[in-house]
Amino acid sequence: MKNLNKYIDHTLLKPQAQQKDIEALCKEAKNHDFFAVCVNPHWVKLASSLLEGSDVAVCTVVGFPLGATLSTVKAFETRMCVDNGATEIDMVINIGAAKNGDWDLVQDDIATVVEAASGRLVKVILETCLLSPEEIKKASQAAMKAKAQYVKTSTGFSHEGATLEAVKIMKETVGDHLSVKASGGIRNYEDAIKMIEAGADRLGTSSGIAIVSSQ
Amino acid sequence: MKNLNKYIDHTLLKPQAQQKDIEALCKEAKNHDFFAVCVNPHWVKLASSLLEGSDVAVCTVVGFPLGATLSTVKAFETRMCVDNGATEIDMVINIGAAKNGDWDLVQDDIATVVEAASGRLVKVILETCLLSPEEIKKASQAAMKAKAQYVKTSTGFSHEGATLEAVKIMKETVGDHLSVKASGGIRNYEDAIKMIEAGADRLGTSSGIAIVSSQ
Repeated sequence: MKNLNKYIDHTLLKPQAQQKDIEALCKEAKNHDFFAVCVNPHWVKLASSLLEGSDVAVCTVVGFPLGATLSTVKAFETRMCVDNGATEIDMVINIGAAKNGDWDLVQDDIATVVEAASGRLVKVILETCLLSPEEIKKASQAAMKAKAQYVKTSTGFSHEGATLEAVKIMKETVGDHLSVKASGGIRNYEDAIKMIEAGADRLGTSSGIAIVSSQ
Repeated sequence: MKNLNKYIDHTLLKPQAQQKDIEALCKEAKNHDFFAVCVNPHWVKLASSLLEGSDVAVCTVVGFPLGATLSTVKAFETRMCVDNGATEIDMVINIGAAKNGDWDLVQDDIATVVEAASGRLVKVILETCLLSPEEIKKASQAAMKAKAQYVKTSTGFSHEGATLEAVKIMKETVGDHLSVKASGGIRNYEDAIKMIEAGADRLGTSSGIAIVSSQ
């Protein structure tokens, strides 16, 4: 598939990742011309400096992976990451509020991060394995109303990653208004193509090199 | 065992927890006179109001569960949680820095949270399953130097919880200077007693009722 590399957010979010691992990640992202790297907030400054002058974006995660912190904390974390060079913010929704049907709270939480991101791209992680199909739809609508740019399936830290079913529901709901990122458990070329065919515009994966190499 | 209930931090950190679950947790903690409840930051205000007038403490988690965010974000989250009524802060260390041997960074990160906690009790989560015995010792020393009150084994979100070996190393290292909290995978009375015999002063568990009921 043409430009498959540009679908890839080359991702390393393991808490035990060290500087040498982040350095390797950024080098690989440049070599394969991936869309972005995705790293924890502690590593944004390093990744940003290593990727300066390249066209690889610096994506980080906020309220990650539980989404159960305060909106003010998510906003503060977003501002710090933007200050350190993050160009994309992948935030986790308040999953408990979604399960409770508090959609106003879910939307306001997202909107707070969108505002703090000051125009940087915001991807809204739904953690679809914890939501019903109806909740996936409502959460996607909340992301649209809050003026985020993307909905994203998964953190990769819960019991299941992206499913075709979840990606399809998200794509049907957001149409052309938002983009869709599939993440979690995407390990090979076949997985990647299926997700793209289901509507994914971006793939979060730590297997990007294997995916583009087996075309 | 006498006062076993007072070893228990009655814990609910699942991201999908809803208001009714937190209400039940607080009610149970009062009924069984547990030491504390342990909830995500979003729920601190509710738990604090529900437990007002009781002697059950309100514990929350910071930089949780990856520990890979910025120290300034951990400090901000701590201050917000204290403002909302948290009396105990369980923070996750910068695990990547520990793996890299950057012990000054690990210590400074903890000290920033201790300062932000303004005298509230700080427990330092090492995530022992990701550390070697030597790293567990060094991380415990960093927590001592940073003037935290506790070292704690685990988040409960990695591949393994508390082990007797980890608790023993922590207890040997901190002696009587700090206390030790064992957490993750403590499901029954036998587990609890073994951890206490190994040196644990507090137990983080979602099985507190089963533990005290089977004495």
